[in-house]
Amino acid sequence: MGGRVLGVLGGMGPLASAEFMRRLTLLTPAGRDQDHVPAVLWSDPRVPDRTAARLSGGEDPLPALLRGIRGLEAAGCDAVAIPCNTAHGWFEAMRAATRLPILHIVDAAAAELERLGVAEGPVGVMGTAGTLAMGLYQERLAARGWTCLVPTPGEMAALVTPAIAEVKANRVADAYAPLAEAAGRLAARGARAVVLGCTEIPLGIAAGPALPIPVCDTLDALARAAIGWARAG
Amino acid sequence: MGGRVLGVLGGMGPLASAEFMRRLTLLTPAGRDQDHVPAVLWSDPRVPDRTAARLSGGEDPLPALLRGIRGLEAAGCDAVAIPCNTAHGWFEAMRAATRLPILHIVDAAAAELERLGVAEGPVGVMGTAGTLAMGLYQERLAARGWTCLVPTPGEMAALVTPAIAEVKANRVADAYAPLAEAAGRLAARGARAVVLGCTEIPLGIAAGPALPIPVCDTLDALARAAIGWARAG
Repeated sequence: MGGRVLGVLGGMGPLASAEFMRRLTLLTPAGRDQDHVPAVLWSDPRVPDRTAARLSGGEDPLPALLRGIRGLEAAGCDAVAIPCNTAHGWFEAMRAATRLPILHIVDAAAAELERLGVAEGPVGVMGTAGTLAMGLYQERLAARGWTCLVPTPGEMAALVTPAIAEVKANRVADAYAPLAEAAGRLAARGARAVVLGCTEIPLGIAAGPALPIPVCDTLDALARAAIGWARAG
Repeated sequence: MGGRVLGVLGGMGPLASAEFMRRLTLLTPAGRDQDHVPAVLWSDPRVPDRTAARLSGGEDPLPALLRGIRGLEAAGCDAVAIPCNTAHGWFEAMRAATRLPILHIVDAAAAELERLGVAEGPVGVMGTAGTLAMGLYQERLAARGWTCLVPTPGEMAALVTPAIAEVKANRVADAYAPLAEAAGRLAARGARAVVLGCTEIPLGIAAGPALPIPVCDTLDALARAAIGWARAG
């Protein structure tokens, strides 16, 4: 394309990455097509399930992730954003395999928490079982002064995990009630904000009334980070 | 990626092509990520304005369109869908320049009209001034037995053209009223359905109440054509 082009390693799931492209566009100050961020979305929904790989011996997604990065390199992209939190469990392996910078979604979430005025203290994190088991948020946010509250195993099994699966199966509206319930329980345990730490979750949350607690939406967070990167070029 | 991969030549505008990716996902019967259509979206919003090129001596978009097709070829795509009606004014030149099949959005719209039960007669077509001046719909639909009613130059200048620009500038909600007004006028002149023949228009139309006339949405139409192509592979 010429100029700075954002590579988006997506398809995990495809509705979340399509929504990421929408947010990227809507959050860009633009008066016409030509003001928007050039981007290539590699939407490969066949990447093996990240949580199954981490927790139950499923197929390793890394080869598929690296194929996507090679595709984005070949397309002439200058950086990579990955609108899938769980895939960040393979962040270091991806980073070691490419010359392109990769925006880290947890760093983007941290910037979004600061933007929301939640600069410290306990925050709730909803994500896949894989993301929570890997401690992707717990470690990276603890290093910056937040503490993370996560759903209990029972809440994961009854609320969060089924809701994520509903979105991946296009039953978006059905995901709202269990996600709102899980968020409310985190708030009741002291969370000052809730991080939607799986990119399917913002889709479910958007299907109902706004939550009565600050929400750190990782699709918006990553889109803002990408726009910042594009503008700095 | 392996398997059949859809290439999407987008960015014209970027909100329309992000919405195309969303429709492609939502219209696919799927129970999990891995059931969805693999796709690469080339979203280059810097493609020179198609209507300006055709009507007022603006820069030729063909080189940018061909760069996008080369990028989709390099990414391993097996077909191309273009969620921009006006770009189809360069369809034959694109088709001559690639071995990949290109789905034609007007053929997809014709199939959608049939699906809606509007198999003949006058239909309204709203699109950019470029699309209407090139007769993209008028010629291709006439060959199949429909006749096309289009907005008057006054309706284009006062309603349709400004509404398309609102969507490209992220002011989606402002586009609804003028588009609904233009559709109503076409219906009053005898249109049995209205074709949203510019991919920004469905975004504006979605921002308000449903129109009281059958609507042929070219984002849905092209998504259905792409899903049909993917399933036939």
